[in-house]
Amino acid sequence: MLTPKELAEYCKNAHENYLPHISIDCVVFGFHEGAIKVLVLKMNNDEWYLPGGFLLKSEPIETAANRILKERTGLDDIFLQQFHVFGDPERSKEHFEMYKDMLPANENWFANRFLTIGYYALVDFFDATPTHDQLSESCTWRDLNDVPKLKLDHTQILKTALDTLRLQLNYQPIGYNLMPKQFTMPELQKLYETILDKKLDRRNFQRRMLGFGILKRSEQLRKGGAHKAPYLYSFDLENYEAALKEGLQGGW
Amino acid sequence: MLTPKELAEYCKNAHENYLPHISIDCVVFGFHEGAIKVLVLKMNNDEWYLPGGFLLKSEPIETAANRILKERTGLDDIFLQQFHVFGDPERSKEHFEMYKDMLPANENWFANRFLTIGYYALVDFFDATPTHDQLSESCTWRDLNDVPKLKLDHTQILKTALDTLRLQLNYQPIGYNLMPKQFTMPELQKLYETILDKKLDRRNFQRRMLGFGILKRSEQLRKGGAHKAPYLYSFDLENYEAALKEGLQGGW
Repeated sequence: MLTPKELAEYCKNAHENYLPHISIDCVVFGFHEGAIKVLVLKMNNDEWYLPGGFLLKSEPIETAANRILKERTGLDDIFLQQFHVFGDPERSKEHFEMYKDMLPANENWFANRFLTIGYYALVDFFDATPTHDQLSESCTWRDLNDVPKLKLDHTQILKTALDTLRLQLNYQPIGYNLMPKQFTMPELQKLYETILDKKLDRRNFQRRMLGFGILKRSEQLRKGGAHKAPYLYSFDLENYEAALKEGLQGGW
Repeated sequence: MLTPKELAEYCKNAHENYLPHISIDCVVFGFHEGAIKVLVLKMNNDEWYLPGGFLLKSEPIETAANRILKERTGLDDIFLQQFHVFGDPERSKEHFEMYKDMLPANENWFANRFLTIGYYALVDFFDATPTHDQLSESCTWRDLNDVPKLKLDHTQILKTALDTLRLQLNYQPIGYNLMPKQFTMPELQKLYETILDKKLDRRNFQRRMLGFGILKRSEQLRKGGAHKAPYLYSFDLENYEAALKEGLQGGW
């Protein structure tokens, strides 16, 4: 939480530089050790948020989302997709309450109604360097099934992002952007199971995945496990992109 | 186009009631005589736009979209989906140019940057009563392949709406909301062909459609044609909605 002096400075700067009433929130997904991870920010009063920010007065939305993601992850050229605007008139009331004694409403940036534009981003877990912002004390990966209760409508934003991933699984290069360069079939199945929120049959999954013709099998095997070493796969990007155009499960 | 006096009044009212920098544009689809139709507004200087409007200061976005659609079509409870925010900083420059000599920029509502939230709506062609707004002289249906050049980025908005329909064809009740209560198989095929922008094989289409178990065949036949009377179908809404949950072409 900001001190009154920091708040005044923050608000003055915000009024000068940002378009009022509009914010951007980002659901950043990664994949690590068989689990989908989400990037969350922790405020020093132990409250949790999705990473976000505001739109400069003459900045394209896409540029703003990329800028915010670069600040939080250190990464350029992230795969990101706008997915929904959240515009409940009451959605940012909590912020208004939090700061209302510190600054008169007309100077208080947080006393405004905000519509927030949701983006989801898919990043390679090992490439990202989570970095917190001015309002928070930490930025960390959390397991999708261990995300703390988020403030404002951020739990809803996360849920909607996941619903979108589910619907776009056949049309967007989700596997390609979330998986490491090489992966085993069980790892890929785990990704699909988490996004679809259901168990899949191992043989069927493998048969269908190979049937799409979008995977290349490496000569190498994964080493070091106790069991028989599994094959390593990577995406054949050209075939993958061609298949996504029609939809992975076949067009009409 | 507004007279200077009308413009001043319009802008005064807009500043008082609407959230700045945000607008809503609607792509309203109908289906008639084998063709997808789109609702367009014509200004008196022969310029064409999609129907749209603004967001009241405390109004939920969804409510605003419904209000705008009710004003343009006379219909309540329209099937509508938010699909994208268009935020190019230059997208509303044309409006600024158009009115800039009539009113100082700080009073001129149209001199602001606007982010517009795109909604697509699916309506029953015969139920809608197209009605123009204060800024336009007519509101009419146009064939999708005969839409005049639209102002601002409205051609892009229409294109993105169509791309969205294409991606959501297996997940949203698009046929149900666009087709009349009863229809023939060739009529339904025509809808799919228009949305997918390609010819489909008649037998395959019929086989797959019937295979989904979402159509009920009526005892009646379509009367009055020169050829053998075709069967009439309607959607089995319960089965349709259950099938859409998994995705029409089958889940994982």
